[in-house]
Formats: sequence, structure tokens, C-alpha cells
Amino acid sequence: MKLRRSERMVVISNYLINHPYQLTSLNLFADKYESAKSSISEDIAIIKKAFEESSIGNIETITGASGGVVFTPSMSKEEALEIAERLRNRMAESSRILPGGYIYSSDFLSTPITLKNIGRIIAESFKDQQIDAVMTVATKGVPLANAVANVLNVPFVIVRRDLKITEGSTVSVNYVSGSSDRIEKMFLSKRSLPAGSRVLIVDDFLKNGGTINGMISLLKEFDSSLAGVAVFAENQNGDRNVANYKSLLAVTDINVKENKVSVELGNIFDDMK
Amino acid sequence: MKLRRSERMVVISNYLINHPYQLTSLNLFADKYESAKSSISEDIAIIKKAFEESSIGNIETITGASGGVVFTPSMSKEEALEIAERLRNRMAESSRILPGGYIYSSDFLSTPITLKNIGRIIAESFKDQQIDAVMTVATKGVPLANAVANVLNVPFVIVRRDLKITEGSTVSVNYVSGSSDRIEKMFLSKRSLPAGSRVLIVDDFLKNGGTINGMISLLKEFDSSLAGVAVFAENQNGDRNVANYKSLLAVTDINVKENKVSVELGNIFDDMK
Repeated sequence: MKLRRSERMVVISNYLINHPYQLTSLNLFADKYESAKSSISEDIAIIKKAFEESSIGNIETITGASGGVVFTPSMSKEEALEIAERLRNRMAESSRILPGGYIYSSDFLSTPITLKNIGRIIAESFKDQQIDAVMTVATKGVPLANAVANVLNVPFVIVRRDLKITEGSTVSVNYVSGSSDRIEKMFLSKRSLPAGSRVLIVDDFLKNGGTINGMISLLKEFDSSLAGVAVFAENQNGDRNVANYKSLLAVTDINVKENKVSVELGNIFDDMK
Repeated sequence: MKLRRSERMVVISNYLINHPYQLTSLNLFADKYESAKSSISEDIAIIKKAFEESSIGNIETITGASGGVVFTPSMSKEEALEIAERLRNRMAESSRILPGGYIYSSDFLSTPITLKNIGRIIAESFKDQQIDAVMTVATKGVPLANAVANVLNVPFVIVRRDLKITEGSTVSVNYVSGSSDRIEKMFLSKRSLPAGSRVLIVDDFLKNGGTINGMISLLKEFDSSLAGVAVFAENQNGDRNVANYKSLLAVTDINVKENKVSVELGNIFDDMK
């Protein structure tokens, strides 16, 4: 397909946006759009400038026979903070308070644009680390893991609280369920995580850390290592028994009597440049 | 931020790709990139041509004071078939056979690029319908619902098989669990689906249709209506007791003795232009 330069830039941008963290040879574009490799190089230079000036991401050029370009999405601190501030206001709505002092938050993790932005913030915070997979526990963590994995372009693995026949052989560990101090089991399909993976663990809410510590102990069973822990929100009334984690939001107080939720920004923004 | 035309086109493309099915005023771009509205119109015309020529999608211009542009993603039949053929070959790998004649398929729904493509195929098939939400049942349907909802830019709702305190008030229905003919319950949070929604139901595997029919009966409880049913794969050895559904893949035979899985393309491709 022969395109004009301006059109070519639009379609090459689209390709790179949809294939982050992936090396793409310039020959792919040269062949597809019947253009000289030197013209494609010039297109990429313009796209790179536009992406960088608008904090969409960076494009790295790798020279040599097996070279090409790699697009790494990024996010400015301003944009991240603006999004987080909106999330904070929504999380502090009094209508979220449920009997027992719980908070309803499922809507955040079921709206594509919100979810995508939450995924971008977490991915941005771990972009300098090598991450081979994102891990979470069913059910509420799944969309979050999916969103982070989309930005990092790595698979995500889902730990289950029950045994499903369609998962094949599984490995299980015991963990302390936060809400009840009961010992429970969690399961991960043996096929789902290759040995030696560097894994980012994500979850929607951190209260006592029981499920997250369960997942950390699962990593050892898979000869894999922990790259980090990130949660959408932490409840500062819990023990948060996890050595090192990053959070987008921190719920500091839930006052059922006065029908008030207090929410602050989480520690993920502390070291964002 | 002042950008050159070519750069402006790259960043406007990026914005539209990330905000499908959403009306965006040209003033947003004119203000952001300090350009005349007429220049932005010309940019959009070039982007539109590039998007259409490469089957990335269509851009519709709505004139008038409250007008703007709407990007609708699309997919050529060739691309959809090429992706489906690769999925078909992978699904037919004999290593997927599990004891009891089940098939391991979790890997399809946990790899971002594969998942995104599956979501694009399903969304393409329903793009002419009004869809307000995508519904699925936990856990394995969640990434699929997420992927379809991303393309259609609508929320997704997750029906659960257990009661979770953090979901608030729920509505429950009984359904016939396919694998055992047992009557079980499924639950949906009252807050998660507004009355009057047109809903697309998706699931990973269709065998007997019990869970899908359960979700259809839930829709009535929410005064909502069914826009369609789509599954990643159907098992043609099951009853598939669902009136109308679309599938990407059809597993026609699982021969445990000969260690062979037979897979064909599903009916979603029958009416794709």
C-alpha cells in the first residue's frame, strides 16, 4: 500500500502505540508502505519528536542488521497527578460506604478509560525494571493486571482461590486471609508462569497483605522473583503487612457514623519525576 | 504546545485511537496545539484517509456548535481471518488436552496482543449495534469482557458465583451449571448496571450455555436487554443451549485417545464483510 508521508506517519504511529516494548524492524514498514528505509527513518524521527514533546512515550532506535525501533509509553507527572486527583475525589464520595465500613470501588476497575489510566500510572512507575509478567488474584484484581500488562506488553497470570479443572495441574500455597485470620489456599496453573520470571504483583485493595504475601510465596514455588507490588488503593486502617508496595490512593479513614471517607494520594507519586 | 503539522497529526491520531466511540470537539485540539480550527480540520481529513485506507477505523465528523469527530475502530475481514487462523492452529495443539477431555486455553486470554485482537474481532462484529455495557461471569471471562469493552469504550460488568461483601447489595438468579446439572446461584452488584442498558454478553467457552442463560435472566432483573452473545470458543460436543451466539473458534472434536483436538473457525466470520 502506497501512502503519502503524512498518512504513513499516522499508520506507523498507530502500529507503535499498539506494540509497546516490542522491537519492530524498519523493513516491516518499508515493505508494507512501499517506501525507502531512509524515508521510514525520517518518519520515525518526526513521530519520535511528537511523542516525546507530548509525553506519549519514547522511541529508541537500535541499529544493526537485527535492529529497529522500540516504543516505550510514558506519562508526565502532571498528567498522572491530574488523573489521581480525580480518582481521589471520586473515592471520597460518601455513597461508597458499605455496611461494615467497606468501600465500593468496583466501578473504577470496570471503565476502560479509567482502567487504562490506572494501568499507565503503575506501568510508568515500574518502566525501568525488567518485568516478564504481571500477577494478580481473582476476581477484582484481574482488570487491573490486564491494564498494567497491556501497557508493559507482557502476559498476566491469575491466581485463583478455587480449583478449576480447566487450569490443568496447579501449585497451591496457604495464606492468611486478612478478613478472618483463617488459613486458606490459593492456586496457580503450572503452565501459566515460566521459571525465572520477574513478576510485578498487583491488586485492587491492600488491607492486611495476606493475599499479596500468598502470591509472593507462590513466586518461590515457580522459581520466579518479585519485581514489585502495586495496588490501586491501600487502607491505612489495616496492617498492610507487605514489605514494599506502591499505591495510587490511600484511604486514611472510613467514618461510618459521619458517612465520610478520607482519601489521600498514595506513595506511588513520591518518586515520580 | 505549538507543534508542526506532521507532529500534530501524530498526537491527534494517538488521542483518537485512545478515545474510540467518543465525540471530541475540534476546539480541544485547536486550543491544545495553538492552531486554527481550519488547520485541525485539515489534519483530521488526512488522518481519516490514512485510517480508512489501512482499515484502522473511520472518523465521522459531526457539524454544528456541539459537533466534533468520532473515531470508530474497524478491522478488515482479511486481518480478522489471518488472526483467527493463527488462533485456530494454536487451539488445535495436542498439548492442550487435559484429563477428562478439557482443553487448556487460559494463555489466549492472558496475553495482551492476542486478547486485544480477540476483542477487536468481537467488537467489529457488533459495531453497528448500540451497546451500553459488556457483561461476563468471573473469572475467565473477565479479560475477554475487558478487551471488548476497551474497543467499544463502554463499561464491563462482572457477574460473580460467590457473594463478596465489597460489592454492596446484589441481585441473584439461579442457573443450571452445565458440568453437573446442579442449580447454582450467580450474583451481580446492584450498582454495577443502570436500568435500560443494552448489554453484550461474552464468555471464554460455550459448552452447555448454563452460565450464559443465567446472565440473560439477570438482565431482566436489571430491566436491561440483550444486544448479543459472543464467545471465544464453542465446544460442539455440548448442547450449546443458547438461542443466538457468535463464536471465534469451534472445537469440533477432542479425541483423548489419539491426543487430537479438531478446531474450526466459528460463526462470527460468516457475516463479516
